[in-house]
Amino acid sequence: MAITFNNDRPLDIIAIGRACLDLNAVEYNRPLEETMTFRKYVGGSPANIVIGGAKLGLKTGFIGKVSADQHGRFIREYMTNAGVDTSSIVFDNEGRKSGLAFTEIISPEECSILMYRENVADLYLTADEVNADDIKQTKMLLVSGTALAQSPSREAVFKAIQAASAHDVKVVFELDYRPYTWKSDMETAVYYHQVAEKADVVIGTREEFNKMENVEEGTNEESVRRLFRYSPQLIVIKHGVDGSYAYERNGTVHHGKAYKTKVLKTFGAGDSYASAFLYALLQEKTVEQALHYGGASAAIVVSKHSSSEAMPTEEEIIELMANGETHG
Amino acid sequence: MAITFNNDRPLDIIAIGRACLDLNAVEYNRPLEETMTFRKYVGGSPANIVIGGAKLGLKTGFIGKVSADQHGRFIREYMTNAGVDTSSIVFDNEGRKSGLAFTEIISPEECSILMYRENVADLYLTADEVNADDIKQTKMLLVSGTALAQSPSREAVFKAIQAASAHDVKVVFELDYRPYTWKSDMETAVYYHQVAEKADVVIGTREEFNKMENVEEGTNEESVRRLFRYSPQLIVIKHGVDGSYAYERNGTVHHGKAYKTKVLKTFGAGDSYASAFLYALLQEKTVEQALHYGGASAAIVVSKHSSSEAMPTEEEIIELMANGETHG
Amino acid sequence: MAITFNNDRPLDIIAIGRACLDLNAVEYNRPLEETMTFRKYVGGSPANIVIGGAKLGLKTGFIGKVSADQHGRFIREYMTNAGVDTSSIVFDNEGRKSGLAFTEIISPEECSILMYRENVADLYLTADEVNADDIKQTKMLLVSGTALAQSPSREAVFKAIQAASAHDVKVVFELDYRPYTWKSDMETAVYYHQVAEKADVVIGTREEFNKMENVEEGTNEESVRRLFRYSPQLIVIKHGVDGSYAYERNGTVHHGKAYKTKVLKTFGAGDSYASAFLYALLQEKTVEQALHYGGASAAIVVSKHSSSEAMPTEEEIIELMANGETHG
Amino acid sequence: MAITFNNDRPLDIIAIGRACLDLNAVEYNRPLEETMTFRKYVGGSPANIVIGGAKLGLKTGFIGKVSADQHGRFIREYMTNAGVDTSSIVFDNEGRKSGLAFTEIISPEECSILMYRENVADLYLTADEVNADDIKQTKMLLVSGTALAQSPSREAVFKAIQAASAHDVKVVFELDYRPYTWKSDMETAVYYHQVAEKADVVIGTREEFNKMENVEEGTNEESVRRLFRYSPQLIVIKHGVDGSYAYERNGTVHHGKAYKTKVLKTFGAGDSYASAFLYALLQEKTVEQALHYGGASAAIVVSKHSSSEAMPTEEEIIELMANGETHG
Repeated sequence: MAITFNNDRPLDIIAIGRACLDLNAVEYNRPLEETMTFRKYVGGSPANIVIGGAKLGLKTGFIGKVSADQHGRFIREYMTNAGVDTSSIVFDNEGRKSGLAFTEIISPEECSILMYRENVADLYLTADEVNADDIKQTKMLLVSGTALAQSPSREAVFKAIQAASAHDVKVVFELDYRPYTWKSDMETAVYYHQVAEKADVVIGTREEFNKMENVEEGTNEESVRRLFRYSPQLIVIKHGVDGSYAYERNGTVHHGKAYKTKVLKTFGAGDSYASAFLYALLQEKTVEQALHYGGASAAIVVSKHSSSEAMPTEEEIIELMANGETHG
Repeated sequence: MAITFNNDRPLDIIAIGRACLDLNAVEYNRPLEETMTFRKYVGGSPANIVIGGAKLGLKTGFIGKVSADQHGRFIREYMTNAGVDTSSIVFDNEGRKSGLAFTEIISPEECSILMYRENVADLYLTADEVNADDIKQTKMLLVSGTALAQSPSREAVFKAIQAASAHDVKVVFELDYRPYTWKSDMETAVYYHQVAEKADVVIGTREEFNKMENVEEGTNEESVRRLFRYSPQLIVIKHGVDGSYAYERNGTVHHGKAYKTKVLKTFGAGDSYASAFLYALLQEKTVEQALHYGGASAAIVVSKHSSSEAMPTEEEIIELMANGETHG
Repeated sequence: MAITFNNDRPLDIIAIGRACLDLNAVEYNRPLEETMTFRKYVGGSPANIVIGGAKLGLKTGFIGKVSADQHGRFIREYMTNAGVDTSSIVFDNEGRKSGLAFTEIISPEECSILMYRENVADLYLTADEVNADDIKQTKMLLVSGTALAQSPSREAVFKAIQAASAHDVKVVFELDYRPYTWKSDMETAVYYHQVAEKADVVIGTREEFNKMENVEEGTNEESVRRLFRYSPQLIVIKHGVDGSYAYERNGTVHHGKAYKTKVLKTFGAGDSYASAFLYALLQEKTVEQALHYGGASAAIVVSKHSSSEAMPTEEEIIELMANGETHG
Repeated sequence: MAITFNNDRPLDIIAIGRACLDLNAVEYNRPLEETMTFRKYVGGSPANIVIGGAKLGLKTGFIGKVSADQHGRFIREYMTNAGVDTSSIVFDNEGRKSGLAFTEIISPEECSILMYRENVADLYLTADEVNADDIKQTKMLLVSGTALAQSPSREAVFKAIQAASAHDVKVVFELDYRPYTWKSDMETAVYYHQVAEKADVVIGTREEFNKMENVEEGTNEESVRRLFRYSPQLIVIKHGVDGSYAYERNGTVHHGKAYKTKVLKTFGAGDSYASAFLYALLQEKTVEQALHYGGASAAIVVSKHSSSEAMPTEEEIIELMANGETHG
């Protein structure tokens, strides 16, 4: 097993970062201009991951800041009902809003997101609002890269990582790169690298690793060579329909093929991948199996309308792994 | 007639200010937390007024800035289709978003709006983007108070007013006070007063006049006494179900009663009032009649789901004036 | 007499705007890089004007905000000792600093100023900190254009003007254009015009009038034509060694020649001009005489090391007017 | 020897951070309000350290950003003349100013500094402006804590550290805590800790270590216990007249007493300490000797008027070590 977790903990995963609102087109296969009705869902990568984890049976928690309004209350309540421990979610008391994502689905190949991320509450979580006691009761701290985009959320993440390191909590860094808020590519590279150095597990797409390395087109070999000089034990690099690769510090490399599916939209693939992959790791499955869990979970979510509500059960994942067809 | 317009102009009204998106609850009579589906409409007070004016047969135009994204393009296209001249609408090329208003309708008495106004495109219209040539071809410039809330939109309004004054375009100031963006009550009072001094017609609720005067509870008599020292010729102060009062510079006072109606929500009342009142003035009806037009139009819109699409035709207004019942 | 003042007032002039620190090169006639020692003086156009006025025997006061530190305390104490009523000066309690001006005197023709104006205290005077009672006890409110460069100082000025207009206090607008802080030429033009419209007397250089009109090179005729449509009664436009022109609303034009002098540096000329010109007006001298007072005072200050301490007495001015040689 | 440097490098120390202007009271032993004349010097902790190092015979360089004005040009030229390689100093092309420090010397016990640090050029050094090639030619990168106070300077420092770590350049972290610019104590603690973790040598006062640990009053034992879990090899904690302590990773502790001196002011003590201490380390003297060098150098500078120009020669230091008296 690539990673050993401290099983003596009540929580499996606690995530830190954004919990937002998705406004998904009710009428899709058309430009957003022509979509007149929207359905709301909870969104945001780390929120989706813990919701997905809870659906798979994990005990999950969330550290973040939401708006002190109807949207923020909805987010917190939805996550609570989904089984996530939301006692570490705080409300913003300076009138900041929760982030929004309007999704546009023109076709499976043409999807885009119209983001409202201006001064959103999640980026104003402060280090003071991160409680080390919340972190030391979990096996794994999941850090979302977007939470690094701005102060004070950035320092809140650093404090959480410090607490994790002090209490033997494994740190998983989901790169989750979003071009909003960041001031420059260099800034992104500096902070992504800072966190990746301290993480035990790093997960991202090839494009996200390029962002972290501030290169046009990097190679997996170079990426893992750089990171294994620091703390990481396990590195997962995703290549879309070409599947994903997992690199262990001991030199072992694994490849997981991508499952074929009827794609409705591409949103939510990364979040569902992460939740199932981490679930498998926590269940002490092999890295190989974990890659299949991740791939199957992603394939299921891209065929459905939402990102959070569509998170699969383990039965659905096992069913697809058993009977699904893979690319290549 | 209280105001003489320069009839030698191709446009009746050009408005300056915000054009945004309303996201109205499809399921209403419940808290916003429980509303899962939203329908989008064009919104924003000055946009609603020119859409309403166009529906009544006026030739209207709009000066403003919208997002260079799907929402901004929808707004511009919707307004064009509604008959508004949108050639003076510019797109924001720095990634700013169009404002949003989520409406919550718990009951006719409990309505609220959840606003997204953080760094919105409309507040970034610059004075350079206001073209005096657009203004000199109209009878009336309608200024929305919210456009004064921040630079550079504030200076854009001042430039528009200077152009109007140089070309004998009457200036109508719709107070349209919204508590967002303003830094202090004193700031609001200073800029509202600056514009009111230069306006020919000033329209607002009693509460909005209080804001302009920075008082807890002012009187109509004091409000008109102060403003008639400057440019205003006609001042309209609205008192909800107690109807509205129009004050002419020559001392004449008119009272228009409010029409009874089955209220669904209170949004949009002011915009529909203004469009019908100004329509009547431009049609050279008496101030008395204009008050009735405004009141009837408001009564119709509050009984319907949207603010912009629900704008009445003149037939509907005349029908209500003929058969409607009034308060008090 | 061009302007009639309300003589029933204890103060002659109250100025609103900045009071700062000048750091003048002790060793001059060299680049600032090579100047190693600096002597501090109070500076800032409106501060200099009231200090100069006090030296001429006027009763003057000052409304402004200074740093709550040693520099701010020095400024207030210096002005008090110079005879200025400083009871309306407030201290900034948010740690903002007083502005600084390092002067470089390479030669009489090559002078420059290195300004520290980043978030300076004077630009944070608020409308709430302007007391109408301070204004109604004076004959004249002197507004410095630089105070319009940013909120909340800008609104503080508007409030002061409103108070002046309500209590028959004449408003003198000294354009005092400084390129710092302003975001665009259009913004400058908009606010300069707003204030000039409401002023009784407008004083500036030809270049400053160009800034107000947002033109490359305007003419005095056009400038006065525009402004006489509004409140101004008297307009003074300065043309350096070609002297200054005063335009009265009744069409009378006066020309005052510039006095020859041994120029040390050009700083402070405008401030000393304004203080002596306004002194003469308040003494009910003719506009013609006032132009000579202004010109003589300016000639004296440019021959000396500082701007504030070098302000002349009436004897010095009269002596130069009697025996001085003029340009052209 | 506690630290082994890569002697195969043309430079001994390259510092990153601020280079500013000190404006020292010519007339002292009085409140700053009463000081009328100021003499300018180059200032800023890392600038002082490399100037001091150069005076001791080290080859030093500087990475930083200064104003593109007379002050910035003076700073660069002064440092060049002092023997510092200034080829990595860049000029700010957005009009930002160089920082200023007015010193007030009421008595040796009552000194204070009035800082102008608002949007100063040095805090706008970007990661792109830090050249790894400049860093790989030196033995030691000196990082000043104040450079962490704000983006983008903060990321520039992180990039410099990454380059140092990639090229076997020892990192010395001089805590140099200044309360300006930092938004909160937690923010300071987070970034100080980030850098201290990666440094080889950490130097600061007891109060500065408290800031890094975000505690009221910490102990040296706890401070070194925490840091020796990471990269540091040598930690120096200064206790004023009680002298300084050096902790080696192997458990050795050294104490250096403070020298008695006729104190004029307390400024510059830390910078002169650091330059002499690092000089001794680079000369392969013992840690014990290095503590004496640091202490003697500090004692000399506090007896003189400036911080940069007063930096001692090695002869002066040796003389004091030979004949000076120590506290306690």
